[in-house]
Amino acid sequence: MPTRDTNFTVGLVQRRCTEDRDDNVRRALDGVREAASKGAHIVCLQEMFNATYFCKREDFALFDIAEPILAPDTGPTIKKCQDAAKQHNVVLIAPIFERRAPGVYHNSAAVIDADGELLGVYRKMHIPDDPLYYEKFYFAPGDAEPPAPGTAKNCVSASGYRVWNTRHARVAPLICWDQWYPENARIAALLGAEVLFYPTAIGWRPEEKAEFGEDHRDGWRTVQRAHAISNELFVAAVNRTGHEPEPGTGGIDFFGSSFVADPFGRVVAESPVDEEHVLVVECPRRMIDDTRRHWPFFRDRRVDAFQPLTQRWLGNG
Amino acid sequence: MPTRDTNFTVGLVQRRCTEDRDDNVRRALDGVREAASKGAHIVCLQEMFNATYFCKREDFALFDIAEPILAPDTGPTIKKCQDAAKQHNVVLIAPIFERRAPGVYHNSAAVIDADGELLGVYRKMHIPDDPLYYEKFYFAPGDAEPPAPGTAKNCVSASGYRVWNTRHARVAPLICWDQWYPENARIAALLGAEVLFYPTAIGWRPEEKAEFGEDHRDGWRTVQRAHAISNELFVAAVNRTGHEPEPGTGGIDFFGSSFVADPFGRVVAESPVDEEHVLVVECPRRMIDDTRRHWPFFRDRRVDAFQPLTQRWLGNG
Repeated sequence: MPTRDTNFTVGLVQRRCTEDRDDNVRRALDGVREAASKGAHIVCLQEMFNATYFCKREDFALFDIAEPILAPDTGPTIKKCQDAAKQHNVVLIAPIFERRAPGVYHNSAAVIDADGELLGVYRKMHIPDDPLYYEKFYFAPGDAEPPAPGTAKNCVSASGYRVWNTRHARVAPLICWDQWYPENARIAALLGAEVLFYPTAIGWRPEEKAEFGEDHRDGWRTVQRAHAISNELFVAAVNRTGHEPEPGTGGIDFFGSSFVADPFGRVVAESPVDEEHVLVVECPRRMIDDTRRHWPFFRDRRVDAFQPLTQRWLGNG
Repeated sequence: MPTRDTNFTVGLVQRRCTEDRDDNVRRALDGVREAASKGAHIVCLQEMFNATYFCKREDFALFDIAEPILAPDTGPTIKKCQDAAKQHNVVLIAPIFERRAPGVYHNSAAVIDADGELLGVYRKMHIPDDPLYYEKFYFAPGDAEPPAPGTAKNCVSASGYRVWNTRHARVAPLICWDQWYPENARIAALLGAEVLFYPTAIGWRPEEKAEFGEDHRDGWRTVQRAHAISNELFVAAVNRTGHEPEPGTGGIDFFGSSFVADPFGRVVAESPVDEEHVLVVECPRRMIDDTRRHWPFFRDRRVDAFQPLTQRWLGNG
């Protein structure tokens, strides 16, 4: 078990994707090797790292992209990830389109320990649906119940939220749209997470980039920095990069900008917008305890008064 | 009732305080007049605006600073605020040290409508306690129950959280330490708030200013900008300025920097660190609906999965 004064090092692999899925996997795992060679203990890939962001349209054929994650049916992508984790001795968070059962598909992240063992899966709790992001068509939201017996090892859970006590740190994966909800970050923190990972696929429509691009990117970064601040832990956001076309639209310019924020919300390091990049950042674990000692937010939470958070709306009407 | 396309204008009065309480009140109400003259509809004063930040030590004599807020015992400070609200036709949020009953004191904000009527009181839910901020000695936390009958007019409430439908906007006061908790902002938003006001007394110890000053100020600003983003409403933070000494310590340098953020978390305007200032900002109400339409966070909240938020801790141990 790591001590308070042990640091851990995270690696974030930011990639461009094409229709060649084998090549996407190969280049992502090259990134894992690069991160490990630079000292990373825990590596996170971007949301649905083995494919283009196919949710730009609703197409029944695209369910073929999905693969099972959990044993005994673990698909080829996650098996390759397990091999890579073992080979490089890194914890690996590998997000893919998950086929759980016929008609039950999720936007998921497999969590693999540094010996290659699959520890379980986090299934995205908050599913968006907007033009070019038709996720409600493809994904069932993560269960509100805890994981089924035998499907989550070294895991503490509440509702669909899960924190794994891996060899190198207590990690909580959350996925993309989840990142806008302070509830998610808070529950993961209460479960003991030391670092939140947000694999992501967020970008600009080319036609809105000039007017809103920088504000959108800064809003995305700010809300996640605030999760680091109010929960006093590390946050790592891993986004894809590159332009992906979609017929009849301008497509999406994914804006990269993968970053790590420390428990005071400072952006410690950030990847570029337009380039593939591997970001490796050492996280001083001690900062979590020190920050919470000086700004004791967790001491004072009014848990007697938070029941209204379980409601959809409280105003008139 | 204001329509979707009606704007409202907020005024934030940032002041230095001295031991002369009458003078503190006079100069704050000069600020209300200035804000009104520049078009403000809703004006907010800083936390415990009529006194120095006396919580720098634990002193039984200082309970004398407190005054009743609610009728029929409303004290002189709030009566002067009611007169000013009526005279200038502004909604006024007036935070003071409240004497509720012998032995029951709160850190509170009176809410006064634009005709001078006292609509009720918000009592700070989250009470800090740190060296130089000994608030747990002075203040009982706000009740978890809704307001007593007859004490809150035009008010929607849940637990101790309250949103008033004033003449000019639906407003939610929250106070200082409250600002670090996303739970508070979320409940106020669910109650229909269009703007959150955070009267505040936050500063630097002179000895930590060089090393941590800018990071603390930016963390304070960032966490509140994120409340604006994740709740898609306006946020107005009103801080005091100036140095206040405390024997045996370096005292506190309050850092001003009062600001307004829009529903995308952009800082629209900001006061200086070291000077008294009145900030007046027009808020396009329509932005709230437009932002929520394009980024529909409220549609997707997993209210079926948020029960863990009512717990102190969920991790092992």
